[in-house]
Amino acid sequence: MNNLNTLIADYFKDSIYLLIENAIDIHNNAINKPNDIYLSGKLMAYVEVLSLLQMQAQAFSIPLESLKLDKFEAEKDLLSSRIISKEEIIKT
Amino acid sequence: MNNLNTLIADYFKDSIYLLIENAIDIHNNAINKPNDIYLSGKLMAYVEVLSLLQMQAQAFSIPLESLKLDKFEAEKDLLSSRIISKEEIIKT
Repeated sequence: MNNLNTLIADYFKDSIYLLIENAIDIHNNAINKPNDIYLSGKLMAYVEVLSLLQMQAQAFSIPLESLKLDKFEAEKDLLSSRIISKEEIIKT
Repeated sequence: MNNLNTLIADYFKDSIYLLIENAIDIHNNAINKPNDIYLSGKLMAYVEVLSLLQMQAQAFSIPLESLKLDKFEAEKDLLSSRIISKEEIIKT
């Protein structure tokens, strides 16, 4: 069971990396297309998903850095009007 | 470290439950509002997120049932044109 949980933890960290990459792509794309309502909807869903994961981590008392979620504030960063580089958010 | 991984696994299962609930709400809402482009964008993002989590689980050889992701096929269910009840997808 410990092995499975270790695998799940690795899986989660790998997946969250991919989700943040997707979110940054959509964010940067949406800045260039402010009238694209479909893209705005996609972006808002990613904000919801990543905010939920960050809030849940706090509820479970899990340090955000252990989930690779610490370089990033979903609402603040993804709803900002500046282009974000993946390096600044994801790399430690 | 094992304790942290157990906590992360519990956190993930709890969070995925909430994400699927959100996705079902948006799906059911979108069926009633087929012309709502913003809602379509949100739904498509949830499909992306949940499909990615299901595909990643397979890549990590994690049984979907251990993640509570087995009652559900993100693309097939969320892009169907029928109302989904949360019970059929989430409960075991």
